[in-house]
Amino acid sequence: MKPLLSLILTRRLSSPLVAGTPLHSNNNYTSVVAPLRRLHRPAFAPSTPRLKFQIPQINKKKPEKMSTDATTLKGQPLDRAALDAMLRRRLFYTPSFEIYGGVSGLYDYGPPGCALQANVIDLWRKHFILEEDMLEVDCTVLTPHDVLKTSGHVDKFADWMCKDPKNGEILRADHFVEDILEQRLKGDKEARGLKVEEKEETDKKKAAKKKKNKGGVEAVRLDDAVVKEYEEILAQIDNYNGEQLGELIKKHDLRNPATGLQPTPPVSFNLMFQTSIGPSSNLPGYLRPETAQGQFLNFAKLLEFNTGQMPFASASIGKSYRNEISPRAGLLRVREFLMAEIEHFVDPEGHKKHARFHEVADVELAFLDRHTQLSGSTVVKKQTIGQAVKEGLVDNETLGYFLARILLFLKKIGIDEKKIRFRQHMDNEMAHYACDCWDAELHTSAGWVECVGCADRSAYDLSVHAKKTGAPLVVRQRLEEPITIEEWDIAIDKKNFGPFYKKDGKTIENALLATTQEQRGELVKQLEENGKVVIDVPGVNDGKVEVSKDLLAIKWVKRVENVREYTPNVIEPSFGIGRILYSLMEHNYWTRASEGGDEARGVLSFPPAVAPTKVLIVPLSSNKDFTPEVRKLSQKLRSAGVSSRIDDSSASIGKRYSRNDELGTPFGVTVDFQTLKDGTVTLRERDSTRQVRAEEDKIIAAIKALVEGTKTWQDVEGELPIFEGQQEVEVVVR
Amino acid sequence: MKPLLSLILTRRLSSPLVAGTPLHSNNNYTSVVAPLRRLHRPAFAPSTPRLKFQIPQINKKKPEKMSTDATTLKGQPLDRAALDAMLRRRLFYTPSFEIYGGVSGLYDYGPPGCALQANVIDLWRKHFILEEDMLEVDCTVLTPHDVLKTSGHVDKFADWMCKDPKNGEILRADHFVEDILEQRLKGDKEARGLKVEEKEETDKKKAAKKKKNKGGVEAVRLDDAVVKEYEEILAQIDNYNGEQLGELIKKHDLRNPATGLQPTPPVSFNLMFQTSIGPSSNLPGYLRPETAQGQFLNFAKLLEFNTGQMPFASASIGKSYRNEISPRAGLLRVREFLMAEIEHFVDPEGHKKHARFHEVADVELAFLDRHTQLSGSTVVKKQTIGQAVKEGLVDNETLGYFLARILLFLKKIGIDEKKIRFRQHMDNEMAHYACDCWDAELHTSAGWVECVGCADRSAYDLSVHAKKTGAPLVVRQRLEEPITIEEWDIAIDKKNFGPFYKKDGKTIENALLATTQEQRGELVKQLEENGKVVIDVPGVNDGKVEVSKDLLAIKWVKRVENVREYTPNVIEPSFGIGRILYSLMEHNYWTRASEGGDEARGVLSFPPAVAPTKVLIVPLSSNKDFTPEVRKLSQKLRSAGVSSRIDDSSASIGKRYSRNDELGTPFGVTVDFQTLKDGTVTLRERDSTRQVRAEEDKIIAAIKALVEGTKTWQDVEGELPIFEGQQEVEVVVR
Repeated sequence: MKPLLSLILTRRLSSPLVAGTPLHSNNNYTSVVAPLRRLHRPAFAPSTPRLKFQIPQINKKKPEKMSTDATTLKGQPLDRAALDAMLRRRLFYTPSFEIYGGVSGLYDYGPPGCALQANVIDLWRKHFILEEDMLEVDCTVLTPHDVLKTSGHVDKFADWMCKDPKNGEILRADHFVEDILEQRLKGDKEARGLKVEEKEETDKKKAAKKKKNKGGVEAVRLDDAVVKEYEEILAQIDNYNGEQLGELIKKHDLRNPATGLQPTPPVSFNLMFQTSIGPSSNLPGYLRPETAQGQFLNFAKLLEFNTGQMPFASASIGKSYRNEISPRAGLLRVREFLMAEIEHFVDPEGHKKHARFHEVADVELAFLDRHTQLSGSTVVKKQTIGQAVKEGLVDNETLGYFLARILLFLKKIGIDEKKIRFRQHMDNEMAHYACDCWDAELHTSAGWVECVGCADRSAYDLSVHAKKTGAPLVVRQRLEEPITIEEWDIAIDKKNFGPFYKKDGKTIENALLATTQEQRGELVKQLEENGKVVIDVPGVNDGKVEVSKDLLAIKWVKRVENVREYTPNVIEPSFGIGRILYSLMEHNYWTRASEGGDEARGVLSFPPAVAPTKVLIVPLSSNKDFTPEVRKLSQKLRSAGVSSRIDDSSASIGKRYSRNDELGTPFGVTVDFQTLKDGTVTLRERDSTRQVRAEEDKIIAAIKALVEGTKTWQDVEGELPIFEGQQEVEVVVR
Repeated sequence: MKPLLSLILTRRLSSPLVAGTPLHSNNNYTSVVAPLRRLHRPAFAPSTPRLKFQIPQINKKKPEKMSTDATTLKGQPLDRAALDAMLRRRLFYTPSFEIYGGVSGLYDYGPPGCALQANVIDLWRKHFILEEDMLEVDCTVLTPHDVLKTSGHVDKFADWMCKDPKNGEILRADHFVEDILEQRLKGDKEARGLKVEEKEETDKKKAAKKKKNKGGVEAVRLDDAVVKEYEEILAQIDNYNGEQLGELIKKHDLRNPATGLQPTPPVSFNLMFQTSIGPSSNLPGYLRPETAQGQFLNFAKLLEFNTGQMPFASASIGKSYRNEISPRAGLLRVREFLMAEIEHFVDPEGHKKHARFHEVADVELAFLDRHTQLSGSTVVKKQTIGQAVKEGLVDNETLGYFLARILLFLKKIGIDEKKIRFRQHMDNEMAHYACDCWDAELHTSAGWVECVGCADRSAYDLSVHAKKTGAPLVVRQRLEEPITIEEWDIAIDKKNFGPFYKKDGKTIENALLATTQEQRGELVKQLEENGKVVIDVPGVNDGKVEVSKDLLAIKWVKRVENVREYTPNVIEPSFGIGRILYSLMEHNYWTRASEGGDEARGVLSFPPAVAPTKVLIVPLSSNKDFTPEVRKLSQKLRSAGVSSRIDDSSASIGKRYSRNDELGTPFGVTVDFQTLKDGTVTLRERDSTRQVRAEEDKIIAAIKALVEGTKTWQDVEGELPIFEGQQEVEVVVR
């Protein structure tokens, strides 16, 4: 505990609270600053697969808080407010239902956001599904209660919330305790005359207003013992349950700055959206919180589809839902979001080798392992994945293979490699986790944000669903050499068992058959001593069922097996597409100010492959003579498979190009009077604003090569004549 | 009424009830046979845009019932049970949560279904969005109550349901009345010795069982007057409300065959899935029943994004939800489904001309207009869209343009043109509909199924949302010549109005400003007579609000305008992707029996562009020597942008090709010992099972050309040597 404590304290203290500037003020509830929480992946926790079924621990850990040192693509300090304003102006995204006042945590993507998302998904599908012959499935979002009860989500996928008794404000209990204690510690530091890193506030007035409303930081010196106590609470804030959080609120008299009152005792709030399926309300259901369950339930069919061959992976791209208590961080914490998840099923024996590992062995990753974190450092270690697996830093080849493939994907779509790190889960994050676990975190103005989780879910999910339903979610592997097995075997008196237990018969039988060898040894003793056994059968009677020796026999048997049956383990790379998209926008954003240009002129330097539109076609003016040429160009580009947009609005060429810099359009083609004479057009490159001029077909070929990545702009400048005409001046001067 | 009545009777009587064979028996509720209902497009009904706001009439009309004369691609009678079994075996789709007993109306797509869907969506995006520069948006599924209250869905998007008092069975009231009366009419016909067209039942036992359970058709002769009465009821079954349906049940003593009891009186059941957004339950919400509303709410932003230019279209591809009372028809009626919707915004003045109409004017469509339907015929009229618009059969160019584009799209993805017709809505279907309205119907084993609706929603949606929120969902068009307007103008005493009405001030103001000129004339009279006006303000007080003359003035003013402001009309092509996919599978299905081959050998002859996988790579045997060659081929195909799958299972080549015929894979490449010697491989074409043999690179080039559609198989056979080796024999013989 001691080193862990020091780590977290170090990290917290060196990383003052950074709230993402709320992008949208139409929240239903105001609340104290709630920093980003993790992507909220359930971190399920079996100990030994198929031996013991533990209740899954849902991972509610908040992401690390970081000071805002986010930069633009060109290394300028990132002005998030300016970026957000630009993204909304250009309709990358917009609050949903804004004319109705909006609903917090819900956003729509406009045309450029939608195209960016479609392009990223297209690359994801090619990079993962097609490249590796994964079995893509599209399962329903609506999920009946029983499925999510079994998976553990009904009981555990919850946060603690409390309410301000006066203004009705809803607060997430752990965030509330954390924020108030952090405010007090900050006040203490101030009182001691230590430097306090202030939150970055681009809007000074807002900061002042906030200070007034929230009571701000009062410079009150605390006893040394109190400081220590607060720090210890903060170090283990994720370990308190609702009752304990309630006690902390009382003991330390934690009050909501908005009203000066203590909130009500915390109650559990399940984060799944509930609904009712069918006309009678007897089939409760939920909107899925992850796409994974649908893949697990189809495991047996997918294995058969794959002609029984292991290993294989399924994949799914679709919406998931989490009813966040108080979403605030714009696109980074939303209630409806697109996920892309892979479930790679692998034999737990054989060290989880991967046949294509050698292809990525030399890929270098930035690792932040758990030992480094324990020592209080966040310095990453750069190493090839081959070396990392060899040294045991990453548990196995399959996990390592996916970490490298995740990195390659993120780079391909235009994420800044310098802002990617792979952080290993801490022991307390993984709870009872059997294996290794890494997150791809991207650095943004909100600090390091988990955007891809790569977890080993072990055999947990398949096991619990198999146990609940009796479906054989296993792999049967023909053995080259038969093996002899000696073990406890349970035989049930089928004739009398069913009639005796009636409707519960099947459930009780499944529970008996699911017992482990160890448990069967215990049951034999019970049979001998009491003439009956008592077993746990959740949902039947009070959860305990007696079975008399007349209805079952447990014998030590010896048999020869030609087939080995096992439940596969699951390695799960899980992508939060919305978070990746937002990070992508931040990483590719810069302003012309860095070149001595106009501060307000933003640019999104997306790689052509993901750019919403590849080419902007601009006629010099609205002169009707340009129309046929513009149409012809557009048609030719379409035939070449390149998306383009025509801007024949009356704005100046410079303004039109500026608009498209903000939209991230990498190339621009100008049609002018010269075009009508000799069929030449100019081609402008977004980032350099440099231009070349050549015959239309040469320009189209150049664009195709640029978009497909077979040529660089330098190549094109080397092949086609540079153009420095009047338009160029217009572009620069605006 | 008379001709309409005769029409419907004719259609009903000539088209005996055909129930889609239930694909999945895990329904929660059994019910009497419920034929397919329409895609359930709300047919909104304004009379004069911006003058009068009527309550939308939700279209609940059931689709026409047709006798099953569905055929395979080769003209064989279609065995739907065999096709469904194949589709499920090959994992095109599968009932969701099957190991938990399933949930009716929910299906998952497995790998081939998922790839087919992705390919169809990709073509849709290219055909509509990219081709026409539509503005794609991705809006949330979660929708707050207020939005759907305004749109009319909360009040009107409902069916009437009743319950069997004994077994609790839930029945859709209109279907129940219809089915029982039809059974009685059929029994009457039998008793009169007339031929009764029997429902097709592939599974005889099931039919027998059903007959027993449901009581079957009793041959009871009815009075002529009773027959007439029943027929009249059936002719207007869609016009009864719940109370009237309840009266029919009582009056005619309609009993559920399963229990012999009358069901309970019908109650309204809203078809939207309800949930609650946020931690306190004060924000009720729904899962959207269509993607359209999100597009309407973003209209002003989209118009600005389009630099104010009209016309333009937005588009959206996403899931929608309808909580069907008793879904039964497999993929044709589901509770969660993918839609692709276009909202084309157009100036209501200027005859809704379309700039690109000339490009499609010569496209020929099969029209089933309303006059033909009224005459009791279902004979289609083939005509070019140019002629149809010219003659006034189709109301305007924009509508006509989209009808032609819809046809071109359906043909492109492989829908059988002979099984496409465009059916015009009847007057009673359109209710208060202002304009023309056509559905693209596809013929399947369930009869003609509406798969694409192409409706003119007029200005209804934009108008109601603008009225409710005060947001200006209008186009402001600069006039070339200023115009002089004389009209009633309302001026509000802003200083006192707000403080007087407090929180309701804005709502009341909006209601006042939204009044029409006609209404303002009335208000002026009220002001003169009573010194106050009374206006309707839904949601405030009892819906009526008094405003005294101190707070407002209504004056006849004259002003010169340079800008024309109007609410655009909306033409909405709306695609039910799941229904299109199912039709696509039926239209491309056939068995080798038609060639004297094996009856059980199914083939899905998808066009290469939509086929889930383009190429199957089969090594002759599991000999390890083939592995490097197979990998190389797979890699080369991937580089050529062609998706392939390797099948190196131990099944015979014939079996492996059979499996892929069922998966719709158009091409197969065999690697054999000859390949290892001289680098040649064979290429097999799915439909003909003919093969050519050539060097690997020539084969890859041929495949690329075939997939891209630049060459036909005939071309390839003309260029490369025909191969008739041992594998071919294996393929045919199995």
